[in-house]
Amino acid sequence: MSGNTFGTLFAVTNFGESHGPAIGCVIDGCPPGMSLSEADIQGDLDRRRPGTSRHVTQRNEPDAVEILSGVYQGKTTGTPICLLIKNTDQRSKDYGNILETFRPGHADYTYLHKYGLRDPRGGGRSSARLTAPMVAAGAVAKKWLFEKYGTSFRGCMTQIGDIAIPFESWEHVAHNPLFAPVADVANLEAYMDALRKAGDSCGARIRVTATGVPVGLGDPLFDKLDADIAFAMMGINAVKGVEIGAGFASVTQRGTTHGDALSPEGFLSNNAGGVLGGISTGQDLEVAIAIKPTSSIITPRQSIDTSGQPAEVVTKGRHDPCVGIRATPIAEAMLALVVMEHALRQRAQNADVRVSTPDIMRQKM
Amino acid sequence: MSGNTFGTLFAVTNFGESHGPAIGCVIDGCPPGMSLSEADIQGDLDRRRPGTSRHVTQRNEPDAVEILSGVYQGKTTGTPICLLIKNTDQRSKDYGNILETFRPGHADYTYLHKYGLRDPRGGGRSSARLTAPMVAAGAVAKKWLFEKYGTSFRGCMTQIGDIAIPFESWEHVAHNPLFAPVADVANLEAYMDALRKAGDSCGARIRVTATGVPVGLGDPLFDKLDADIAFAMMGINAVKGVEIGAGFASVTQRGTTHGDALSPEGFLSNNAGGVLGGISTGQDLEVAIAIKPTSSIITPRQSIDTSGQPAEVVTKGRHDPCVGIRATPIAEAMLALVVMEHALRQRAQNADVRVSTPDIMRQKM
Amino acid sequence: MSGNTFGTLFAVTNFGESHGPAIGCVIDGCPPGMSLSEADIQGDLDRRRPGTSRHVTQRNEPDAVEILSGVYQGKTTGTPICLLIKNTDQRSKDYGNILETFRPGHADYTYLHKYGLRDPRGGGRSSARLTAPMVAAGAVAKKWLFEKYGTSFRGCMTQIGDIAIPFESWEHVAHNPLFAPVADVANLEAYMDALRKAGDSCGARIRVTATGVPVGLGDPLFDKLDADIAFAMMGINAVKGVEIGAGFASVTQRGTTHGDALSPEGFLSNNAGGVLGGISTGQDLEVAIAIKPTSSIITPRQSIDTSGQPAEVVTKGRHDPCVGIRATPIAEAMLALVVMEHALRQRAQNADVRVSTPDIMRQKM
Amino acid sequence: MSGNTFGTLFAVTNFGESHGPAIGCVIDGCPPGMSLSEADIQGDLDRRRPGTSRHVTQRNEPDAVEILSGVYQGKTTGTPICLLIKNTDQRSKDYGNILETFRPGHADYTYLHKYGLRDPRGGGRSSARLTAPMVAAGAVAKKWLFEKYGTSFRGCMTQIGDIAIPFESWEHVAHNPLFAPVADVANLEAYMDALRKAGDSCGARIRVTATGVPVGLGDPLFDKLDADIAFAMMGINAVKGVEIGAGFASVTQRGTTHGDALSPEGFLSNNAGGVLGGISTGQDLEVAIAIKPTSSIITPRQSIDTSGQPAEVVTKGRHDPCVGIRATPIAEAMLALVVMEHALRQRAQNADVRVSTPDIMRQKM
Repeated sequence: MSGNTFGTLFAVTNFGESHGPAIGCVIDGCPPGMSLSEADIQGDLDRRRPGTSRHVTQRNEPDAVEILSGVYQGKTTGTPICLLIKNTDQRSKDYGNILETFRPGHADYTYLHKYGLRDPRGGGRSSARLTAPMVAAGAVAKKWLFEKYGTSFRGCMTQIGDIAIPFESWEHVAHNPLFAPVADVANLEAYMDALRKAGDSCGARIRVTATGVPVGLGDPLFDKLDADIAFAMMGINAVKGVEIGAGFASVTQRGTTHGDALSPEGFLSNNAGGVLGGISTGQDLEVAIAIKPTSSIITPRQSIDTSGQPAEVVTKGRHDPCVGIRATPIAEAMLALVVMEHALRQRAQNADVRVSTPDIMRQKM
Repeated sequence: MSGNTFGTLFAVTNFGESHGPAIGCVIDGCPPGMSLSEADIQGDLDRRRPGTSRHVTQRNEPDAVEILSGVYQGKTTGTPICLLIKNTDQRSKDYGNILETFRPGHADYTYLHKYGLRDPRGGGRSSARLTAPMVAAGAVAKKWLFEKYGTSFRGCMTQIGDIAIPFESWEHVAHNPLFAPVADVANLEAYMDALRKAGDSCGARIRVTATGVPVGLGDPLFDKLDADIAFAMMGINAVKGVEIGAGFASVTQRGTTHGDALSPEGFLSNNAGGVLGGISTGQDLEVAIAIKPTSSIITPRQSIDTSGQPAEVVTKGRHDPCVGIRATPIAEAMLALVVMEHALRQRAQNADVRVSTPDIMRQKM
Repeated sequence: MSGNTFGTLFAVTNFGESHGPAIGCVIDGCPPGMSLSEADIQGDLDRRRPGTSRHVTQRNEPDAVEILSGVYQGKTTGTPICLLIKNTDQRSKDYGNILETFRPGHADYTYLHKYGLRDPRGGGRSSARLTAPMVAAGAVAKKWLFEKYGTSFRGCMTQIGDIAIPFESWEHVAHNPLFAPVADVANLEAYMDALRKAGDSCGARIRVTATGVPVGLGDPLFDKLDADIAFAMMGINAVKGVEIGAGFASVTQRGTTHGDALSPEGFLSNNAGGVLGGISTGQDLEVAIAIKPTSSIITPRQSIDTSGQPAEVVTKGRHDPCVGIRATPIAEAMLALVVMEHALRQRAQNADVRVSTPDIMRQKM
Repeated sequence: MSGNTFGTLFAVTNFGESHGPAIGCVIDGCPPGMSLSEADIQGDLDRRRPGTSRHVTQRNEPDAVEILSGVYQGKTTGTPICLLIKNTDQRSKDYGNILETFRPGHADYTYLHKYGLRDPRGGGRSSARLTAPMVAAGAVAKKWLFEKYGTSFRGCMTQIGDIAIPFESWEHVAHNPLFAPVADVANLEAYMDALRKAGDSCGARIRVTATGVPVGLGDPLFDKLDADIAFAMMGINAVKGVEIGAGFASVTQRGTTHGDALSPEGFLSNNAGGVLGGISTGQDLEVAIAIKPTSSIITPRQSIDTSGQPAEVVTKGRHDPCVGIRATPIAEAMLALVVMEHALRQRAQNADVRVSTPDIMRQKM
């Protein structure tokens, strides 16, 4: 129990380090009988993959996934699904003096104090590379949820550094390298170019949402759907804040406006973000996350070495100037894993409950 | 597994409903040999207790805790500690037509859809009253952590509705009914009085912090210390957002400023909020939460009844006009439970690790 | 995580000590909508209750159960069910010098070494009295399984000390104080009377079985149905051996006889004991357990005191001369809890699987 | 949660099928800083390996283990250790009509009813081949326990079919292919040869033991050390019975003989098998298991096909005539995993407890 398993009924155990031979995960609890092949998973991995634009790390990894178990003749068998992604482009030499010093904003200091030793190559296990197996596992959950309930997941960038990005349309997201929901990203790309040239990095704000979520998912205490979402999101590298629905804006709201009124046609607003009392309402889940600026920058920073002496740290190597860019598919995957977990729990406890629902609401379920 | 257990090594199982005979919890995993009596727990319960000022619900509950097991001759025995709090002031008649209608912002709708039936008395299990056993369990964790590592926990209100509250001093917090860190709360009380008179409610922002946290607590994936904090905080009733350290402000920070530099005297800032790579740095844990306005207000709201027909809902009874007020001791308790859990985990995995640390840093550990 | 929770989806957290104010448990995961009252639980508690014949401890406890939560208007709500049993007849003075010495066969020695302190009153938490809450929880599981699938549980004594007890009929079991499946228990009672007069105790062998078990319960690795049964049974106080189906007799069987042949009418034998590959076949579950002789006997035994010096130990107080007698309802309850857990798991993972089964077999499902 | 993870603090997640591309496991929770290489693991795998004598399956697998993660520069890092074993000698064609029929004694029937589909190649996931990753994980646990506490694990065969095997010495076990503790195994080999010639199979009884076990391991309810051992042992393929210490012989023992007396020099006997009240005494753990005869035999058996019609089943392919032979290293590994789990738990809860123990006993700890 070093916490490397996510979920209980749909349990994903993650393993590997940035520069080891391979990374991957074992999914335990995928229902049997679903058709599944590598192609079902590779698409989301490609969305997260490094090297796809000048705005992300130039590490060149195909991130090709292999299914090692749990699938027979193209169908899941109900047994553990091991997904393996081989590491192919590790350049350990790029990592300079990071073994002897602590990079500000990085896990170097804490790993050494926790374990007494650490794998410095590419951040070892603290690398964001370890989100790749989660994206793979999330793809399996997405497929099952879509086939079973029609649930779908989407995400986009809503702010990058100082620039708020207006929402124009979901359809733009796939057509620019920043996952921005706008047609024209020229200003955003110029911003990123200037930042990279300055040897600096910036933060981002990401929105992620689920549509077609069954009503009734989540447990009152403590495994509330929103609590599990917060856990999943804050567990993504570099995330420093999580909001559900109105989020921090609810501080200045009044009770007369925050609580979403209901009509026979359904809820009239979604300040709740799709969760009331920890349980899904059937409305869209609405989640926002704050991602800190990349800590790996070429600008020298003040630090100390492992003997406590002052040291200047410069991070060489290939890094994302905004780790938030590739966070969108990761956040979608983590949200899918949470919904999957609670869908299975709901089946366990309430499989035979019959609820009378207005027709109009049933469309939301 | 309806999620009513919080933690694994220090596992707190919560039970009860707002208007049942009793609420309580079972703590499994408290180390043996610590002196413990009801008096050690009652203090925090009294801070959370209803009826203590005109700004909170007038429900009058002593919330007296009884230790039913796990303590022998004033010492914990290492076996489960059952804490019982009897309910004494339930006025079910106050709850009007809430059985047939769905109160906006409440869990009525989702409970009925999840379970097919619900206990409407005082919100049943979705009542914030169920945080009392967590405050009790948190008091046990606080005591152990303080005796063992000198760790302490504090919280305060930093915004109520539209009014941001400046931080003057921790010492003021205990001397006003709003947990505000300021000497003069006249303007805040006037704001609350006006709101109550208007039959409305407001949100709040709470800060909670831990000092003297051992370095090295937390697991890289997925049970990061900050992820578990987010889970714990979002699990508190009415919380809609969680931040660690710089939180959402990190979106507009640059890498050159966000990453906390180190000197031989220690970290020079705390944008990280005390967590790097999911593991505690030994600095203060800094957490902020957003709490939505109370959904129970006397202003009529538009809703539907259980047959899907339009209905107007007015919530009678005794309610907090700002649930955020009593959230401070709750948030402290939840933070303590997370730190306790990870302190025990660290002992399991790394009990014999010896780390060389600069003297100045050791003071923080 | 001191292991006081049994099960995951139907999780029973046990608390209390033999001579504390109360014992009890919290059931988390009971599906909503089942009618439940104290009367549904009390019956099995009465079967396990002390003081019902001269062959068991003369401690006089009504073991009256109270439901503190999780039931509203006579129906389970899907939230935690807290069951409380108050201790009423503790005579701590009976326990002599057991605080300073280690009673052979008892947990005194191991508790002190594990925890550094112990509650000596009636064995504290190691008392078989703590099985009472499990019997109560088992009664809830039995009720749900019977209403849902028609599953039922029975147990009987098959050997007491040197005397093997032939199986005549299940109907005799309720009509004698030894849970023996025979009409005439005169010889067994005489054996017990002689043993008690001699100040000695004896072991027993118990058979417990489930009928009407759904097919497909259990997980291949590692939570096999039979592995979980072994865990549950070996967890009962004083149990030293567990068998499924043919058990140890299978050592001398041949492959040509052990493997149960199938015909269109079903399995032709049940050496498997209802489990193949860790998964239920739909046949009766057949379990046998060995229970050691009571360690609390009035005959003096050689031991040491806590300073390591030789000491003679005599156990006074009121004890069962054969703890196996009251083990039957306990073993039934534990078996029911295992089946309940796996029934819920099966719903989570395979709720929509359709299997084609010969009609004749479907009757068993 | 299909149960493919064994343990909580030292959690081993198993994956793979007999005839898929690979089998393996992920160990989560191994303390950091222990030297570890493939060579430390391969030894036990070789003891379990098929094809090593004429008495076991002639499948020829090198079972070479690869460490994919969790080790850096020859030391464990505290992060998940993925162990991979590639399958190299799968002859699926050998498996005849097993897809359409149910082999008596096999999991064919239950898998199909549980999952609605199954992987018939070599038994898929129900194959005993899946014990190989457990042997690998057990080797890691053994190494840590030996280095930390001097704990060691041994096993031997004590009965094969009708022939009880006397215990002569542990040193013989490694020098014959049957893991028998006797110098001369000619009669046992002749027995096996006759059985194989007859196209039949037999059961076995295995003893497994641990020496140098720390005192105080195990939790009173329900994760007793002996309950977890029973779970682990019954989870091994083909096991039908488990005994701790005196086991079923305790049924006919008296209280005056069963309870192990203590002297200043330690316990005077070990009927307890090293566990009292679910907690280790520091004496040797003594465990015995019953293993059923191999179900895969070439003698035709009566069965049905998947449409419920009568069918004769003959199992071709390469099988162990006594699966008990290779069970010894498997049982040792599972016992090591249980002790490892509880050693870490004990550190979590009681790391700082000081117990006063007679010197003579401390030698056992």
